[in-house]
Amino acid sequence: MDKRKEHIVIVGGGFGGLYATKAMKNAPVNVTLIDRRNFHLFQPLLYQVATGGLSPEDIASPLRAALKDQKNAQFLTGQVIDIDPERKVVILEDGDEIAYDALVIATGASHHYFGRDDEWEPRAPGLKTVEDAVRIRRRILLAFEAAERETDPERRRALMTFVIVGGGPTGVELAGALGELAKHTMREEFRAIDTADAQINLIEGLDRILSAYPEDLSASAEASLRELGVTVQTNKLVTEIADDYVLVKDAQTGEQTLIPTFTVLWGAGVKASPLSEVLARRTGVELDRVDRVMVQPDLALPNHPDIFVIGDLAHFAHQTGEPLPGVAQVAMQMGNYVADALRRRRFGKEIRPFEYKDKGMLAVIGRNKAVADIGNLHFAGLPAWLIWVFVHINFLIEFDNKLKVMTQWGWNYFTRRQGARLITGEASPVWMQLPIEHEKAVEKADR
Amino acid sequence: MDKRKEHIVIVGGGFGGLYATKAMKNAPVNVTLIDRRNFHLFQPLLYQVATGGLSPEDIASPLRAALKDQKNAQFLTGQVIDIDPERKVVILEDGDEIAYDALVIATGASHHYFGRDDEWEPRAPGLKTVEDAVRIRRRILLAFEAAERETDPERRRALMTFVIVGGGPTGVELAGALGELAKHTMREEFRAIDTADAQINLIEGLDRILSAYPEDLSASAEASLRELGVTVQTNKLVTEIADDYVLVKDAQTGEQTLIPTFTVLWGAGVKASPLSEVLARRTGVELDRVDRVMVQPDLALPNHPDIFVIGDLAHFAHQTGEPLPGVAQVAMQMGNYVADALRRRRFGKEIRPFEYKDKGMLAVIGRNKAVADIGNLHFAGLPAWLIWVFVHINFLIEFDNKLKVMTQWGWNYFTRRQGARLITGEASPVWMQLPIEHEKAVEKADR
Repeated sequence: MDKRKEHIVIVGGGFGGLYATKAMKNAPVNVTLIDRRNFHLFQPLLYQVATGGLSPEDIASPLRAALKDQKNAQFLTGQVIDIDPERKVVILEDGDEIAYDALVIATGASHHYFGRDDEWEPRAPGLKTVEDAVRIRRRILLAFEAAERETDPERRRALMTFVIVGGGPTGVELAGALGELAKHTMREEFRAIDTADAQINLIEGLDRILSAYPEDLSASAEASLRELGVTVQTNKLVTEIADDYVLVKDAQTGEQTLIPTFTVLWGAGVKASPLSEVLARRTGVELDRVDRVMVQPDLALPNHPDIFVIGDLAHFAHQTGEPLPGVAQVAMQMGNYVADALRRRRFGKEIRPFEYKDKGMLAVIGRNKAVADIGNLHFAGLPAWLIWVFVHINFLIEFDNKLKVMTQWGWNYFTRRQGARLITGEASPVWMQLPIEHEKAVEKADR
Repeated sequence: MDKRKEHIVIVGGGFGGLYATKAMKNAPVNVTLIDRRNFHLFQPLLYQVATGGLSPEDIASPLRAALKDQKNAQFLTGQVIDIDPERKVVILEDGDEIAYDALVIATGASHHYFGRDDEWEPRAPGLKTVEDAVRIRRRILLAFEAAERETDPERRRALMTFVIVGGGPTGVELAGALGELAKHTMREEFRAIDTADAQINLIEGLDRILSAYPEDLSASAEASLRELGVTVQTNKLVTEIADDYVLVKDAQTGEQTLIPTFTVLWGAGVKASPLSEVLARRTGVELDRVDRVMVQPDLALPNHPDIFVIGDLAHFAHQTGEPLPGVAQVAMQMGNYVADALRRRRFGKEIRPFEYKDKGMLAVIGRNKAVADIGNLHFAGLPAWLIWVFVHINFLIEFDNKLKVMTQWGWNYFTRRQGARLITGEASPVWMQLPIEHEKAVEKADR
């Protein structure tokens, strides 16, 4: 490392951080990328891991391998727990300090249970990390395994009932993949149960799923989900998540319904990573209600032009008045922008505000089923699905896994098999063995 | 399920149990296969998961998928904890009982630390399960990650020192794959360390590694390992495994050597699964010193012709006077034999004793490096490696993963990349952050 060169420290190896690092490849700087994990995760495909279609290794790439040929970049595994903007250092969990000339924070977001984290998180896993996906996969598969051995019809029905909270892209993709699994992939594999009898409930608080999409695509998505046996419940709020049931309240009538289930999956709220609080404390920057950092038009902090926040951690509303969505496209463009802004600053050039170029939105529902909103064009069904496959494989090109994922997808597609359905890790949740007692819950629902 | 048909219960979905089940496909029986896990694991390739070459999903197949088209077979996820040979039932961990007409036990083996399990197991993980492999992968990768950040040369050297206990196939394959990783795959990916400086020690108690192979192949294997930077230490016994060192004693001189290290991997001893003790208690059958069940020439228990024990759990010495080795070939042939023996018994035909047809032994050391002992032919280097690749891909044919593993291997081979190097699960072991204090240990070594 040339000590005389400017040192850029980038925290977080997601889309934002990795693209920022790569965009500095030919810049006369030293880059240090820090992440808690040693790999970049292709999060848009995480739901496929959660439903046994792909392995975690298929959608993750070691960051060292990604930066192997970028000689001005070093990668470090570590967790940044503090930032000192006066001394211009970041502080790692083991006390090590790393000095920066410019700092880019791209640590993303995690789940958010509307203030009921302690109670709901263990019961309704969200989908952000590889461990989350493996946990969800285990929960789903264990429920079917337990149903195959269950003789009590009420318990069996509850074991085969799934509740997915949140009708955004994550919830829709999970529900669709789970529908495929139950209705097609696993159907011939069980002897005592018919997996197509599974009840999959997608619960959404607003009046339609995929509310960020045009209405016609929401309707297409809902129709596709219905074909896969998913029950879409809109205008419904989850008010309680217990070991063996979920309480759902109608947003209009206030009526409560109890759904006996052992498997609840969370696709509802996200919250910025804890580093935003550190930034607020250390620099006085303002946070929004989910702790995202209110950034300047150039993605820097007010009064701290050497600190940038990008990706899901940034609240950027200068363009449309609304914060940009927490999607890979935004993070990637922000990463590239910051690399360019730093270059322009170095050469004394004018820096224009960040501008997001929306390339469209895509959500997949199942085999041959997807929705796409690109420019003024709306696609649904097979055309949308083909666009989705093409776009995702093209992205994976960067991450060395294209060939393998293509093979795996092709295989899964033509055989309708999914070989990654392993139950690994901890044992089954205790509550799956509990007797169902809903008296108390029903009382509550009646009140 | 036709209730009038004979019910065969098979416990364990490894090579023995799965092959027994499949061999009964056309028999007029009902088969129930029970395993704690919902997948069959292709154990011979587990070391590739432990070293980041393949994902767990690449070498595992859901048992349900494997038995999908075998309509006379049902699979159940569950753990058998007891057997009642009088009532002819097996008892699961939740109290469920399953009645059998004939029972096949194929629950295999796990690690064995020569009576020091509690002390050594957490420090020196063995390689039997997917979780084991992922744990070893994490330990190896974390050691390099910590070394990259370490500034103290003594600690850095200890972090880059690896001790593999046991020079059998598992130890040799792990050492070779680790050598490839350090000397080739990862070399360009680190900035502060040269991974080729890693010290990889393979410790073997006997006077040569791979002692089940002919002497010339042991020598070839040792030479290949040396090329990959592995130090082979024969006639050496491990006497202590601590958080930050290992004590090794020379079997001849008694001299003790201390090796500072944070990463110890276990490839030494195995022990039969706990179900053998249940069998001994319930049927009076004799066990050998590693708890394997002493079976009759037809693999049944004495006085219990309806209970068979196969695979690693069986001690079968009727053929050569020595127990057959715990390898996939033996288990597969035993599985097929039991299916045939039950068929012959059903039709009142004569049952000949089990006879193992040795198709040879194969161990892989690295890219283009392997040893093979087939009939009277000894192969080493590239020819042995090609045989190994061919044989393993051919086996995987059964398990639906051939195409994917071939793609992955081809990719890894030509690019020398290994994309499955993820650090997942628990955080780094605490002791990696401990200061090294060897005074006490050195005292011990001096005594």
